[in-house]
Amino acid sequence: MNWREKLYIIIFEADTPAGKAFDVALLFAIGTSVLLVMLESVSEFESEYRPYLKAAEWMFTVLFTIEYILRIISAHKPLKYMGSFFGVIDLIAVIPTYLAFFIAGTHYFVVIRTLRLLRVFRILKLAKYVGASRIISEALVNSKAKISVFLFAVLNSVIILGTLMYLIEGSESGFTSIPRSIYWAVVTLTTVGYGDIAPSTVIGQFLASIIMILGYAIIAVPTGIVTSELTRSRNFTNICANCATKNDANNNYCSNCGNKLENSSKS
Amino acid sequence: MNWREKLYIIIFEADTPAGKAFDVALLFAIGTSVLLVMLESVSEFESEYRPYLKAAEWMFTVLFTIEYILRIISAHKPLKYMGSFFGVIDLIAVIPTYLAFFIAGTHYFVVIRTLRLLRVFRILKLAKYVGASRIISEALVNSKAKISVFLFAVLNSVIILGTLMYLIEGSESGFTSIPRSIYWAVVTLTTVGYGDIAPSTVIGQFLASIIMILGYAIIAVPTGIVTSELTRSRNFTNICANCATKNDANNNYCSNCGNKLENSSKS
Amino acid sequence: MNWREKLYIIIFEADTPAGKAFDVALLFAIGTSVLLVMLESVSEFESEYRPYLKAAEWMFTVLFTIEYILRIISAHKPLKYMGSFFGVIDLIAVIPTYLAFFIAGTHYFVVIRTLRLLRVFRILKLAKYVGASRIISEALVNSKAKISVFLFAVLNSVIILGTLMYLIEGSESGFTSIPRSIYWAVVTLTTVGYGDIAPSTVIGQFLASIIMILGYAIIAVPTGIVTSELTRSRNFTNICANCATKNDANNNYCSNCGNKLENSSKS
Amino acid sequence: MNWREKLYIIIFEADTPAGKAFDVALLFAIGTSVLLVMLESVSEFESEYRPYLKAAEWMFTVLFTIEYILRIISAHKPLKYMGSFFGVIDLIAVIPTYLAFFIAGTHYFVVIRTLRLLRVFRILKLAKYVGASRIISEALVNSKAKISVFLFAVLNSVIILGTLMYLIEGSESGFTSIPRSIYWAVVTLTTVGYGDIAPSTVIGQFLASIIMILGYAIIAVPTGIVTSELTRSRNFTNICANCATKNDANNNYCSNCGNKLENSSKS
Repeated sequence: MNWREKLYIIIFEADTPAGKAFDVALLFAIGTSVLLVMLESVSEFESEYRPYLKAAEWMFTVLFTIEYILRIISAHKPLKYMGSFFGVIDLIAVIPTYLAFFIAGTHYFVVIRTLRLLRVFRILKLAKYVGASRIISEALVNSKAKISVFLFAVLNSVIILGTLMYLIEGSESGFTSIPRSIYWAVVTLTTVGYGDIAPSTVIGQFLASIIMILGYAIIAVPTGIVTSELTRSRNFTNICANCATKNDANNNYCSNCGNKLENSSKS
Repeated sequence: MNWREKLYIIIFEADTPAGKAFDVALLFAIGTSVLLVMLESVSEFESEYRPYLKAAEWMFTVLFTIEYILRIISAHKPLKYMGSFFGVIDLIAVIPTYLAFFIAGTHYFVVIRTLRLLRVFRILKLAKYVGASRIISEALVNSKAKISVFLFAVLNSVIILGTLMYLIEGSESGFTSIPRSIYWAVVTLTTVGYGDIAPSTVIGQFLASIIMILGYAIIAVPTGIVTSELTRSRNFTNICANCATKNDANNNYCSNCGNKLENSSKS
Repeated sequence: MNWREKLYIIIFEADTPAGKAFDVALLFAIGTSVLLVMLESVSEFESEYRPYLKAAEWMFTVLFTIEYILRIISAHKPLKYMGSFFGVIDLIAVIPTYLAFFIAGTHYFVVIRTLRLLRVFRILKLAKYVGASRIISEALVNSKAKISVFLFAVLNSVIILGTLMYLIEGSESGFTSIPRSIYWAVVTLTTVGYGDIAPSTVIGQFLASIIMILGYAIIAVPTGIVTSELTRSRNFTNICANCATKNDANNNYCSNCGNKLENSSKS
Repeated sequence: MNWREKLYIIIFEADTPAGKAFDVALLFAIGTSVLLVMLESVSEFESEYRPYLKAAEWMFTVLFTIEYILRIISAHKPLKYMGSFFGVIDLIAVIPTYLAFFIAGTHYFVVIRTLRLLRVFRILKLAKYVGASRIISEALVNSKAKISVFLFAVLNSVIILGTLMYLIEGSESGFTSIPRSIYWAVVTLTTVGYGDIAPSTVIGQFLASIIMILGYAIIAVPTGIVTSELTRSRNFTNICANCATKNDANNNYCSNCGNKLENSSKS
């Protein structure tokens, strides 16, 4: 086993003590660096600890750059790694600090490093969490069409209702333009309700009330979509050995090819 | 094939290159015209580009008018088209600009054009999305009775609670009349919570807390209604000739005994 | 058929033209009287139309009083009617106007008349809506225990979190007392968020963020309870003729007594 | 039966009249003491009744201390009691008053006593409520992995979106630092929407609108998770010897063929 293979096991895997130590240290470093960038934006904090913050940021960036280079060197297929989700994130996570040389303020984008923390599930072999996240994302992907239609309908409603409120309310109560009124309609329909813009006329409040009660019923739709998807996916856990169709956990025979299923309905 | 038939294929269908190009151009024109009307309402923008905005609005309106006339001419059954959902929308979408000659401000209603964008799903043959929207609207139609009862109950609660808060709070904290207090009750029960009206007395805040916690439980009802409707999609109408188990309409083999089913419904 | 029987058919039933006309007129009168009381609370409106509003209120109250007396006279079992839900509402709906002689402001309680509108479903024989409201209320009654436990847990959380925020925030940002902080906790946990009280310290905002994200997960619980109840109730529509057990629509034989069910799984 | 056994029956059980009376009195005392601490924080109330409130607080604390000692003395396994959930709560519930000698303000922590009220379900033998709370907490425990993944995803989104808004909005509209912007993102994504911080630039409002609509779809996820967990309660573990259909554990007869089932599990 040459040094590249050793490096690979330490950096990419978490089965050996060294590999595990590396991963935990990495997660810790990522967390700390994100936290420091956040604190840097707090002016009282920044004015007092500026040199230390700058030094820490550079230290972390250099560390992560070295780590990124080592990953490319040790990866079995460097190009595949560079093109993968985590490969791209690893690169993006170091760029902002260098970019700040040319464009001021861009170093704040290093918070994108927070996405690297997603690795925590994978590297620490938390199979349960990986499974859970797969179920959730599958349910979301499966309901993509329904959610798109729903969002399109919401978009239409929001444009028409926003314009209506603009015409009813006029500028005094904050409905100064159609885009702003649409922003209000989004704030209201999603039940966020900042209150920075609120209807003041009687007709405006009446229409707003109707929008809210409708929004109340509308909120039921995405919930229903995702729930029905999650409920369905939970039952179809009995995969046919013959044709790979997913069967209900209670089935004895595959509903697609009639093959006898191994009864896994105990779980 | 005469020119009317050719026109029909271009305007109403999207299978030929010309038809597809027409539809994409149409969607683009609709989107742009809606966007321009929105921007027109932003005063800084309007004062600078007024002549251009006016010109663009007229151009789009004339274009859409011509398109509407061509649709009537080329349609197989002109009257049926004019009476259909999209026929009515197509007409309403051009009226406001002309109406603005007589009544100022009405041209903003052209945002109704945004509804024409709904065509995007139909013309681009996005079967998946059409199916998804059918499932959602079916679920909503099926739960119409339940949602009506729910909304009626909410209406009753809101009237009684609003009046109660009016009597408790008095005018200082914004509860200046019963309709306004009802508006507050809607804002609170739907968890929008602008904060333009908020209880300031101890009893008022106590009652408001109860309303909110109840509203928290109430929000569960429409969600439950729609979800149970969406979940029910699978229908077990395929009875096994061997063991009499009811199977899902999509099954090929009985899920219980593995007997081949007579696959009648594929829905 | 004597006059009492005729009166009964007109007042209590809606099958004859006279009965239907009476019910529609009654609903109209109730709606109008509630609307007028609401408008009376709007000061500009009240100062202008005071005499008319007063006259109308008395007219409606006298009418409803006569109606109530006629109902008692014509009812088959007067005492049973007086003790029923609608009997009590009918009485309460006329009292406030008379009470206003002795205690000022009480006449606003006539909005309780709005509950009489619930009759609309019953008298107009809207069987579908009656069924829908029965399903919803059954689901709520069935999940009573679960919802109680949930509300008790919310109450506990709100008391402890409110106290914590009182100690963290102090009086400057509106957390002036524990009850007020608990009110804030309710406003936050239910996602209403007026903004009349909002944390201003860093630790306060941090704790508030945790409360909100938890509240986000908590909102799932009542929804889950009601949904699972509504989903269950929808399936158990096959009542056994032998033992009255409710069976799943897909069952062939009663799961309780083994009696053959009349297969109603088509619906 | 010695005095310790008698004491045990009175304090720990609720089957005898004395035991029941003790428990009811205890719940009443807990409720009163929590209420008094809350009222003490209301300055007008405190300045008037200070001596009485102080006296009451000490009286309750001494009473609860005696009760705690008696519980330890009479418990069958004192150490097991002290280590149990309620044992710890009982101790924590008396500490704050004593602690207030040394650290001012800490006596407010006695509101933790409210948790002792949870005993109400257990001691009054409300089996239905105990069952309900077991179902809810089981569903939450089972969906722990999914909810963790969901919260982790929310945390990531909130950090990145908050930073983005900080860069877009700048300090004028309240986005003074990244932590504060993240706080805003939490307030918005959870649809609380205080309005103490709200975007004022066009791009900021546009991004905020997208966040809200996404948050609207995201709220569906935890609801779906808990609902699908709660719905799953029925378990089909009772296999018919005649037709091999899987029946609900509570069935007496096979729902498919009417064959008598061997009723093993009654759960």
